[in-house]
Amino acid sequence: MSDNEFRTIQSVGRAGLIKEITEETGFRNEAVISGVGDDTAVIQETEQRVSLLSSETMIEGVNFDLTYTPLHYLGYKAVSMAVSDIYAMNGKPTAILVNLGLPNKLSVDMVKEIYRGIYSAGNDFEVQLAGGDLTASHQILTISVSVYGRGEKNQIIYRKGAHQDDALCVTGDLGGAMAGLRILMREKDHWKEHQQNQVQPDLGDYEYVVKRQMVPAARKDFINMINEKHIRLSSMIDITQGLVHELHQIMDASNVGAYIYQAALPIAIETRQVADEMKEDVDKYALYGGEDLEMLFTLPEKEVEKLADHFNDFAVIGKVTETGEGLKMQTPDGDVVFFDDENESADKA
Amino acid sequence: MSDNEFRTIQSVGRAGLIKEITEETGFRNEAVISGVGDDTAVIQETEQRVSLLSSETMIEGVNFDLTYTPLHYLGYKAVSMAVSDIYAMNGKPTAILVNLGLPNKLSVDMVKEIYRGIYSAGNDFEVQLAGGDLTASHQILTISVSVYGRGEKNQIIYRKGAHQDDALCVTGDLGGAMAGLRILMREKDHWKEHQQNQVQPDLGDYEYVVKRQMVPAARKDFINMINEKHIRLSSMIDITQGLVHELHQIMDASNVGAYIYQAALPIAIETRQVADEMKEDVDKYALYGGEDLEMLFTLPEKEVEKLADHFNDFAVIGKVTETGEGLKMQTPDGDVVFFDDENESADKA
Repeated sequence: MSDNEFRTIQSVGRAGLIKEITEETGFRNEAVISGVGDDTAVIQETEQRVSLLSSETMIEGVNFDLTYTPLHYLGYKAVSMAVSDIYAMNGKPTAILVNLGLPNKLSVDMVKEIYRGIYSAGNDFEVQLAGGDLTASHQILTISVSVYGRGEKNQIIYRKGAHQDDALCVTGDLGGAMAGLRILMREKDHWKEHQQNQVQPDLGDYEYVVKRQMVPAARKDFINMINEKHIRLSSMIDITQGLVHELHQIMDASNVGAYIYQAALPIAIETRQVADEMKEDVDKYALYGGEDLEMLFTLPEKEVEKLADHFNDFAVIGKVTETGEGLKMQTPDGDVVFFDDENESADKA
Repeated sequence: MSDNEFRTIQSVGRAGLIKEITEETGFRNEAVISGVGDDTAVIQETEQRVSLLSSETMIEGVNFDLTYTPLHYLGYKAVSMAVSDIYAMNGKPTAILVNLGLPNKLSVDMVKEIYRGIYSAGNDFEVQLAGGDLTASHQILTISVSVYGRGEKNQIIYRKGAHQDDALCVTGDLGGAMAGLRILMREKDHWKEHQQNQVQPDLGDYEYVVKRQMVPAARKDFINMINEKHIRLSSMIDITQGLVHELHQIMDASNVGAYIYQAALPIAIETRQVADEMKEDVDKYALYGGEDLEMLFTLPEKEVEKLADHFNDFAVIGKVTETGEGLKMQTPDGDVVFFDDENESADKA
């Protein structure tokens, strides 16, 4: 251990920490085509085929709150988050391993509820639960999902493939998961005031955004469609930590800039309603809200029309610009906002 | 959620919980040759080759104690535990993903110490760190390692292959990791009494067992040797939860019994010294102590001599018996002890 002062992780940020750690290059295995720095690791299997590996850890109190999260939703979400990484490489998830750290406060039947969600997601995403482990844990529940998937080597879509003038697109709508979280946290405060420990969420008016938060679905439909219709994307990433953060990942990997139109950000009506109620700026939800599990992708401008012929649920939000341009956003009244660097979003991670 | 009473996890035990969870059969993917129930999942890649997947989660306060564990040892151990599962299938580890849940009490340099251990293990076991994630965590450090490895399909060694009259063997010696833990816990109590928070372990007399606990090495040497010398084992498992527990895994998977000789249990002198000091039975350490990362394996009696020609560091501890015989142990004075069922060990997991 060095004699340096205590540098907090906050002081360097998540991105800074990752940078320091990956300065060291450890052992290299020739089968690994791509390691740190994309949605999944990519491993060569045959001349044509690769394996894709990713993992996701969710920690109680950080990534979820048991006071309002149904346990089967939690199991589903953990799997959905994991397989989303495979889809983001244009791969097909095959198998998952699940490790649970189990505190005493969970009963056998509560653990079975978590697995009900895991099996349900397994059916939806056609992945087999192929192993894992159960460990005791003090106080907090932890869920780790490892996922193995497959892809055709020359069909894998990396973060690094974006080219200047490509269209910048997202599937679905943005900020819904964050709006759902806002509602759940407000309701929790309300329940706390009324000293109810057992929470029975009555979230009738906000079902859409609350489900976006609690049980987001990975975009298998989009990935199946682009493969069926032979639409070639130039880069892709799934939105787990917010649009601005993911944009910076693509920009850094592809060595490009990005220009987005604020007015083009796809936002659901219910998400707007929540932001209004909270007296917050809904565009902040769309720009920084995580966990939507939508796909952010780029493709040549001329391919957009072909995509639109087969798929409705996406929006063009801007375009790829040249190296050094950074991330800029044009506001509805024509001003241009510049986003400093990725630490802005990384700090929110 | 059902209306049943609150059944604690302790009341059914880890094995019972796993049984209840795996009663449900979820989605099956045809590429998955073997899923839940062995050291790793096995996935068919080509006619000859399979991929092996496993994962390991370590939780502070349960699996390790930061008051006396050097952080680089911790990183090393997490990787060692993960790759050990690949070796236990007679596979070769290729790549790992590491997810850390990081509490504020860790500085940037402390996190880098963990990675120093991870990279060091990567070099020793020839695995590439190929991804992972960093998440904030409240209070406790969590480490999840996913490991991907490879094997020849017809050379994979499952738990299910043990046959009646096979010799039952272990590599190395048993109970050392548990002895090390005993010493560390005693020293911690001592330090606490003297109100020292910063622990500088002076463990000169117990270096061997303390290292067995803190930084166990997966038996790559043994696996390399059996492949070089074409020695065919009939079943294998790595010892992470104790000999009796692992024996029951092989017995259940192979549908056989086991007969072991207490006098044949390989125990290091230092392990005996610790047990003496603690006024405990050293055979309990050997039978129930976890984390030794030694290999428990079976092979035809006539193959033992061939193995001994090439490798010294193993002991024959008994033999495989017929179905229904359960687990029996012959004591040095000729008595026979019967081990009830695996819950005895599972409760200690």
